[in-house]
Amino acid sequence: MIGIFDSGLGGLTALREARRIMPNADFIYFGDTGRVPYGSRSNDTIVRYATQIMHFMAEMRVDAALAACGTVSSVALESLRSFCHIPLIGVVEPTAKAAAAATKNGRIGVIGTGATIKSGAFERALARISPDVKAIGEACPLFVPLVENGFIQADDVVTLEVARRYLAPIGAFGADTLILGCTHFPIIAESIKRTLPDVTLINSGREAALALSEAAPAHSLEGHGSLTCYVSDNPENFRDVASIFLGERFDAPICKIDIERY
Amino acid sequence: MIGIFDSGLGGLTALREARRIMPNADFIYFGDTGRVPYGSRSNDTIVRYATQIMHFMAEMRVDAALAACGTVSSVALESLRSFCHIPLIGVVEPTAKAAAAATKNGRIGVIGTGATIKSGAFERALARISPDVKAIGEACPLFVPLVENGFIQADDVVTLEVARRYLAPIGAFGADTLILGCTHFPIIAESIKRTLPDVTLINSGREAALALSEAAPAHSLEGHGSLTCYVSDNPENFRDVASIFLGERFDAPICKIDIERY
Repeated sequence: MIGIFDSGLGGLTALREARRIMPNADFIYFGDTGRVPYGSRSNDTIVRYATQIMHFMAEMRVDAALAACGTVSSVALESLRSFCHIPLIGVVEPTAKAAAAATKNGRIGVIGTGATIKSGAFERALARISPDVKAIGEACPLFVPLVENGFIQADDVVTLEVARRYLAPIGAFGADTLILGCTHFPIIAESIKRTLPDVTLINSGREAALALSEAAPAHSLEGHGSLTCYVSDNPENFRDVASIFLGERFDAPICKIDIERY
Repeated sequence: MIGIFDSGLGGLTALREARRIMPNADFIYFGDTGRVPYGSRSNDTIVRYATQIMHFMAEMRVDAALAACGTVSSVALESLRSFCHIPLIGVVEPTAKAAAAATKNGRIGVIGTGATIKSGAFERALARISPDVKAIGEACPLFVPLVENGFIQADDVVTLEVARRYLAPIGAFGADTLILGCTHFPIIAESIKRTLPDVTLINSGREAALALSEAAPAHSLEGHGSLTCYVSDNPENFRDVASIFLGERFDAPICKIDIERY
């Protein structure tokens, strides 16, 4: 069993990639829909929430887990690894590796939630992996509600104008590679691409799913290809929006749990 | 002591009005910044959160309280009144009264979060107060993150375009009066006004503050004009954004509490 979790729905973009790469694995997905968004919360709160989720994952006997959340990966991963003894993948390290391999001019942009950018986690990982790379981070907090409220058409003038403002410093910096450091952002990749047409986008969900497939024990890849979702708020709200993220009708069972008990 | 609470910062617009009307009263404000936003959560969750807040308000010995949150006022007020024995004002009833008094053509629009509009609470209150009035509700979920991320200039093309899409059905309906059913919305009243220039806007925070001043015991109005704020997440984040809502530098003490203990 492989566990993927996120503060809400965004991690479904990583789940989609993971199921493509590991079609026979059994997955559980937890979306903390009762406490989303994490991006504007303090580090203490984020660590506490993520710790509860790992306790739930342990109870579900997962063999490997993916924190498909830029915020958790940026501020809570070391703390989680101190008590959890299964492979735990975040989005930061694998994404930074892919970006460092992709850049030609050594200039990489990073976009994410406020907490992700404030943490500087992607920039620090890039400096470790490739000390000569220069990186610039820009918080794009409005991208998350734009996606969740359906402003996702590539030619939506609202999303294009918000992208133009947020991404102007990335363009001025001359980045040739851009890390989408939040799992919501691939949904509006086309709008981002129109704003920065010559830049290579690195999808953190896809890179993390690849790293997960390498870290997961072999036996966990040979299941029945099942999927069960768990959420901390109303399952029906989750189903309604999940199809946006999965790019297809969402039919998996969805169970509500009381995450505050963990 | 008078208590005002909200899911986050929006209630500060009601606090501002309340302090203008009751300059000598002592106020406490609670913003549930660790669990904001309420608007997309299930009714059970909203009732549970609001119940914890009223337990905190009781511990602080408030003489009267205002739920300055369209979502709580719409779905949780009756439940709160079943156990709390101080005057508890919501935004729905006083706002509906003011709108019913203001309309000339009997057509009223209501805008709010998804949960507020889904609840139909403003429309039901209007039907009770003035059975001949016709009302139309439209959810405007993106207005809240637009305000919190500073897209608040009256000529901001992003906010104007979002307003144009959300408010088109209100215009087509022929409303002459529009209830701003979320305490965030007065911050972008100018953008809303430009989109619907001939419509009278009803500010739910102001109407609720007036109702609070009538319901509060006389002795609670004769204090020192003090203010203390409580939040459930990082106080510094709160201070940074609070000045947007208060329209002035925010200097009151801010304490973090663990609202989940109540």
